Amino acid sequence: MADAKVRLYVDHDLGEGQSVPLARDQAHYLFGVMRLGVGDSVKLFNGRVGEWLARVVEAGKRGGALECTAQSRPQMNPPDLWLLFAPIKKARTDFIVEKATEMGASRISPVQTQFTNAERIRRDRLQAHAVEAAEQCGGTFVPAVDDLQKLDTVLSTWPHDRQLMFCDEALADGTPAPGLIPAGNTNKWAILIGPEGGFCEAERTRLHKLPFAHPIRLGPRILRADTAAVAALTLWQHTLGDWT
Amino acid sequence: MADAKVRLYVDHDLGEGQSVPLARDQAHYLFGVMRLGVGDSVKLFNGRVGEWLARVVEAGKRGGALECTAQSRPQMNPPDLWLLFAPIKKARTDFIVEKATEMGASRISPVQTQFTNAERIRRDRLQAHAVEAAEQCGGTFVPAVDDLQKLDTVLSTWPHDRQLMFCDEALADGTPAPGLIPAGNTNKWAILIGPEGGFCEAERTRLHKLPFAHPIRLGPRILRADTAAVAALTLWQHTLGDWT
Repeated sequence: MADAKVRLYVDHDLGEGQSVPLARDQAHYLFGVMRLGVGDSVKLFNGRVGEWLARVVEAGKRGGALECTAQSRPQMNPPDLWLLFAPIKKARTDFIVEKATEMGASRISPVQTQFTNAERIRRDRLQAHAVEAAEQCGGTFVPAVDDLQKLDTVLSTWPHDRQLMFCDEALADGTPAPGLIPAGNTNKWAILIGPEGGFCEAERTRLHKLPFAHPIRLGPRILRADTAAVAALTLWQHTLGDWT
Repeated sequence: MADAKVRLYVDHDLGEGQSVPLARDQAHYLFGVMRLGVGDSVKLFNGRVGEWLARVVEAGKRGGALECTAQSRPQMNPPDLWLLFAPIKKARTDFIVEKATEMGASRISPVQTQFTNAERIRRDRLQAHAVEAAEQCGGTFVPAVDDLQKLDTVLSTWPHDRQLMFCDEALADGTPAPGLIPAGNTNKWAILIGPEGGFCEAERTRLHKLPFAHPIRLGPRILRADTAAVAALTLWQHTLGDWT
């Protein structure tokens, strides 16, 4: 009844008086784990229409139902910013997805580079991580996680109205930093984080030649890929995004 | 003989021709795990005199010895920037120490706030994490990790020539952001990251009144403490530190 402590993402319409059925795992979480019962309040979001307060109207072991009462937060979409990264060890890949969601990326694309170890990813598991991060960080938006694609393919089919900022470790030693982020005439951006070990020479040469791609350096120390992702997202959000 | 792939922190003098004895765990790592033998090369740093190439001259199960040949990188100290943070769950606390090292903090201070769950920390374990992070990120400096102290005590004994930037979640909703980082006449800084759940009202009031403390906000989404640490370090390094 009191403050709704639980925030839940649901893939369902939300609106005043809207009834929301619960799947078995959601019912287990709300009633088994969190010990909620009929009359208790929950916060819901579906990634499209903000956050809604809802009340438990039916609580069972295999399902249940909620009823939306009022909107508690408006929908807030992040800037149009994709994060492309080369998957690394499992825990750190999960971490990148979590951090990208918190930091306000609108889409998350794992890419396979020459030095990427991962041959495949569990897209559904990474998507679930993005949902959980959005539930935790109070966001109302869940970035879509793409399937793993080859970097070559991604660059060959790149949309020409989108700028790409890539973090080049090779710039870290001595090479002067280019202007942090070039002024652009577009709101569509992407950040590309290379794999541990960096890009291979052919990838680096190609990236530096692309008219839509802009190298940046992230300081004089070598950052792990997960650290670099948060740092690059911070600089972008601070300079061009919704942090200002 | 070829490229030294292993980087090792040692608490020992380094210099041309200097002999460096190996403790049992270091010998196990170099000869047991990494399979090095006499004649192989290693990179060493002690946090004070840069990175040195060294050659294995004695390799045993319980110890061994290296001999420094030449300096491979000069010493690079980070700016005079402390990171203060309220310890959180074990894995994320480890993570903050790792990230602070990569991002170039010069000192890491766990502080106990009103909403901090941790009553104690394992200082030696966290210090070992800082060493490992420095070994991995190519750094030549290892930040000291302090014992856990009460935030109240830390603020009461604060050195008056050091500025403090603190991240206040309560600023996230609506309140306009103050200038990101105030211009200062000092190179001595610290960043304070609050606990999950934020500062308590008394802490917040006190912080806002301190002449050396400056609130900043990190965007419109709520960040986890570990994300906030990397984001705040990024903004500081980019604006006032050694990233420019």
